[in-house]
Formats: sequence, C-alpha cells, structure tokens
Amino acid sequence: MNTSNRVCALLGIEYPIVQAGMVWCSGWELASAVSNAGGLGVLGAGSMYPEVLREHIAKVKAAAPGKPFAVNVPLLYPAVEEHMASIVELGVPIVFTSAGNPRTWTQHLHDHGIVVIHVVSSVKFALKAQDAGVDAVVAEGFEAGGHNGREETTTMCLVPSVADACEVPVIAAGGLHDGRSILAAMMLGAEGVQLGSRFVATPESSAHQAFKSAVLDAGEGSTSLELKDVTPVRLLHNPFAQEVMKAQQSGATPEELRALLGRGRAKKGMFEGDLNEGELEIGQIASMLHDLEPAGDLVRRLVTECRELGGPGLGGRFDF
Amino acid sequence: MNTSNRVCALLGIEYPIVQAGMVWCSGWELASAVSNAGGLGVLGAGSMYPEVLREHIAKVKAAAPGKPFAVNVPLLYPAVEEHMASIVELGVPIVFTSAGNPRTWTQHLHDHGIVVIHVVSSVKFALKAQDAGVDAVVAEGFEAGGHNGREETTTMCLVPSVADACEVPVIAAGGLHDGRSILAAMMLGAEGVQLGSRFVATPESSAHQAFKSAVLDAGEGSTSLELKDVTPVRLLHNPFAQEVMKAQQSGATPEELRALLGRGRAKKGMFEGDLNEGELEIGQIASMLHDLEPAGDLVRRLVTECRELGGPGLGGRFDF
Repeated sequence: MNTSNRVCALLGIEYPIVQAGMVWCSGWELASAVSNAGGLGVLGAGSMYPEVLREHIAKVKAAAPGKPFAVNVPLLYPAVEEHMASIVELGVPIVFTSAGNPRTWTQHLHDHGIVVIHVVSSVKFALKAQDAGVDAVVAEGFEAGGHNGREETTTMCLVPSVADACEVPVIAAGGLHDGRSILAAMMLGAEGVQLGSRFVATPESSAHQAFKSAVLDAGEGSTSLELKDVTPVRLLHNPFAQEVMKAQQSGATPEELRALLGRGRAKKGMFEGDLNEGELEIGQIASMLHDLEPAGDLVRRLVTECRELGGPGLGGRFDF
Repeated sequence: MNTSNRVCALLGIEYPIVQAGMVWCSGWELASAVSNAGGLGVLGAGSMYPEVLREHIAKVKAAAPGKPFAVNVPLLYPAVEEHMASIVELGVPIVFTSAGNPRTWTQHLHDHGIVVIHVVSSVKFALKAQDAGVDAVVAEGFEAGGHNGREETTTMCLVPSVADACEVPVIAAGGLHDGRSILAAMMLGAEGVQLGSRFVATPESSAHQAFKSAVLDAGEGSTSLELKDVTPVRLLHNPFAQEVMKAQQSGATPEELRALLGRGRAKKGMFEGDLNEGELEIGQIASMLHDLEPAGDLVRRLVTECRELGGPGLGGRFDF
C-alpha cells in the first residue's frame, strides 16, 4: 500500500477511490467487487432494515475477505441506533455519516476503533465535522445525485474551499466518473474521490435494470435539484419529477410537496423500476455514462486512466 | 510563443488564460493589463454604446500595442450590427460571441480574418457552434456568474462532455480562479480557461468599488441562478435578488419577473454601485476571493501556480 496518500493510509486501501454508499443501489455485491479491486466498497444503509444491513455486512465480509469496506449511515434514519450497534458488533472498520450532526456518533465509533467520515456540502459543515473529530470529509458538489446542499456549491468551487479550510483529508464527490475527473478533483485539493452514479451503472449495483437503463439514456439537462424547500435532492426527470417541478412552479407549500413525495418513492423507482411513479436519484454525470461496466474492471480502468494522465509530475498524491 | 497549446496558437497569446468579457466590468484598462501580461484581455461590449466600444478599442490598442485582444458581443444586443462594423473597421483580431445564433456572424467575421469563439453551456450548442464554423468554444458551467444555461450543467460535467464531442479547442469557464482550478479544467479536456469573477476583483476592472467590496465579502451560498423562466442569470444575494426570489416562490409569471427586472439594473448595481436596487452578477467562486489583485500580477501568479502544480508530467497542454 502507498502511504503517501492520506486517504489510502486512513482507509487501508490501494487506490483512493470510494464507491458511494447509496440507497437502493449499493449492497454487498457492489461493495465487495469494489473492495476486492482495491477501492473502498460502501454499503448504503439508508435503505436497509437492521436485519438487512446485518446480512449485507456478513456477505461483504465473506465475499471480500480481509478487505476494508464501509457502511454509509444517514444520521436522520429512524433505525440509526440499531445500525450503529450492528456496525460495532460486526466489526465494520469504516463508517460514512451524512444528513445529521456528526457530533452525535463520532466519539462512540472512535471508541470502538472505527474510522468516521462525514459527507458535507459546505465549508461550514466541513469545519463542524472536523471539530466533531471525524477522520476525513467527503465534499459533495451540486452536480451529485441524491440529497444535496442548499448552497448549490459545485464540485469545482467546493473542493478547494473545503481543502483550504480543513486539515483532515478531503474526498471529492459530484460529477466524477473517469480518470480525467478524478485527477481534476485531486488537482483541486482532494486526496481521494467518491463516485456514485458511475457505480450505479454496473452489473453489481442493486439498482433495478429499468433504472440502470434510464441512467444510461440520460442526456444533458436530464436531472435537476428539486424539493429545495423540503430536502434538496437531484432527480432524473421522469413523470414523478415533472409533477414535483410543476407543483413547485405553481407555488406548492413544503407540506404539499411532502404529501406529493409520500413514502417509498425511492424504493419504487430505483429498486422496483417504476420509472413513472418512482423517485430516481442520479447525478448530472449520468449524461456521460453509456454502458454498464463490471465494478472491478471499472476501478482498474480508473486507476489506469489516472496513471496515464497524471504521469510522474504530479507529486505524491497521485502516486497510486 | 508555445504552439503546442492550440488556444495559445489560435489567439497568439503566451498563456491560455482569457479574461471574460463582462458587462460593466471589463473595459480597456482591464483588457490591456491582461493582454500586456500575456493572457487575452476582452472588452465586454454588451454594456457599451457603439461610440463607447470604439473608444475602448482605440484605448486598448494604445495601451497594449501589438498585443492580441478581443471583444465579447452578446448577439442579442440591439446594436450588434454597429458593434460588428466597428470591430471590422478597427481591426479587432478576435471576437467572442454569446447569447444568440453563432451562424449569423461567423462567416462575415472570418471573411475579415477575425477569429471567432462562441460561448456555450451545453454540448448541443457547442456542436451547433462548431457546425457554424467557430474556431473554439467557451464551455461555461453553472457556477459561472451572469447569464447561464438552463441545463445547469456544472464545469466538472460540461467540460469533458464538450471536449469529447467537439474537435475545436475548448476553453473552460465557471468556478476558475487559481492555478489549481485552471489545471483541473485542463485535466478535464480544456485547452484554455476563461476567468470572470477573479478579474472583477482587480483594480483595473470598471466595476464600482462598492460592488467589488460586495464580491470580496461574499460567502458560500451568497449567489444563485435566478430568473430561470426569463433568462437564467447568477446573482449575488442583495435586496433586489431577494425580491426576485420571493416573486418566483410565490409563482410570478415571466412577464411579472420581466417587469420587476425592468431596465438598467445591471448598470445600476455593477457600475454605479447601488447594492440595494442593482443587479449584481458574479460567480460562486466569489466566496474564495478575498482581495483585489492587479490584473497583470494575477495573470503571472496563475501561470506560476500552474507551472508549480503541473510539473513536467502533464504533457504539452501544460507547457506554458
């Protein structure tokens, strides 16, 4: 392992490439494929019942023996206490937290030797996370899929701002999908990268085939950040998203929007493949994805592209 | 001059750094300072009467003798015919066009030996510009200040998409302000960069001092893309912008928004320094600007940062 890269050293991985822990898309098959290829596979616990998460933790450990992996826990998730208990009990080495106060769980996880990384969309929250003692932050830009910040700060603006403000390593997210964009993020000050949409478009992701096809068909302008007055989320433009946009344009209240959103929309769309009624979360970069690629091949291709593009002149951060 | 960079070769400049031609901010003082330092200075003709543009062209030629410079002409500007006549008559070597059909003027300008570059916010319009015969395109992301695309595609997603789709050189814009971001944009496939907000924050820009101070005071989330149903524009959040956002939230029609916008708001804000009633156009990256820097020093610092960061391993595009 190359220890000149702080993200590799912190996470015990070969390449500073993290697969985002995404609701309905990232179970044990995807996470183990990524971890086996030298990146970091992450289970998305935000869409899992406690017993489902326990099953996925056991399966990823069996499928990628001895390899680091992580669990992403949205801190506003109702079963967060049960998830954290499973994580400690089953020896998960790394946790990504998001959507909540990083102070609540960081010390507890550290007490059990678990690395903690918090996902942020602003310098303000990055500093708050650092103050809470997290080991690194993911700085996720406006172009990223799913839940997102109100400031709408893009990856190009967010990553250098957070890198300048924080001492902990910064993992960039939002708009990253190939060697070019990974090196660009690192040039901006990131020491690692997190890719979400690109890993949705793999055979191993648990996204429904119909959703994967919709992702590959997406063009420019096919996604937008919606529900800003409720919880900002980047959606693929299907009939449900159109309905949301229409309601917003006619001045719907947050309560009316919450009623329209209802419950179970994300599962219906991303996991069950209902492209009309379901909520489809994906990043802007979907417009550049044109095929499914096995997750392990993808990690290896990204590393090769980075090495070819970066060359030896870029200093220690790129020597992976 | 280094001709391994296509943008340097096309424009006859030392460094592939373009100062954006911005309304009310970029007159002859700024443009000549940038051109004298080896970048490309650009006059923003969108806020100039025909006789004012002629005066600025004469002054930039006198202040930067023998150096390339350009004029930015928004094609929807009422006096576009008079502007184009002045440009031909006074021997302007390079024109940036935006906000209109690139087919209308490109051949005419080429017939007079003038290089034509069109500003785009999508692959669709980049291909349309290339088909119209332009010599290069500026790919401007969502984070950029001022007028912007409806697709909201960020620089991180837009630049590689346009670079993959087009054969003409791509100049990246949006969120760029230092050596890191310039190299990141080039890593994404750009062969040149255009910086706007960073050049507003110079002593030479013709922005009002009060506007410059407001730019330096901006924090994260201080700008947003508004008036999407009229003409999308990124605004600094002053009382006028707050009024626009409130009107939009309560479902104002495009006609009502146009009435609220009225006429002369941009001049009032950016040139006359009315921070309450004026329209203030600036990019997201304003949050990272903390001081005014003379434009020539700025160009030289950017080049130094690029050289230090890039090193020899990055191939010909970075050898400037």
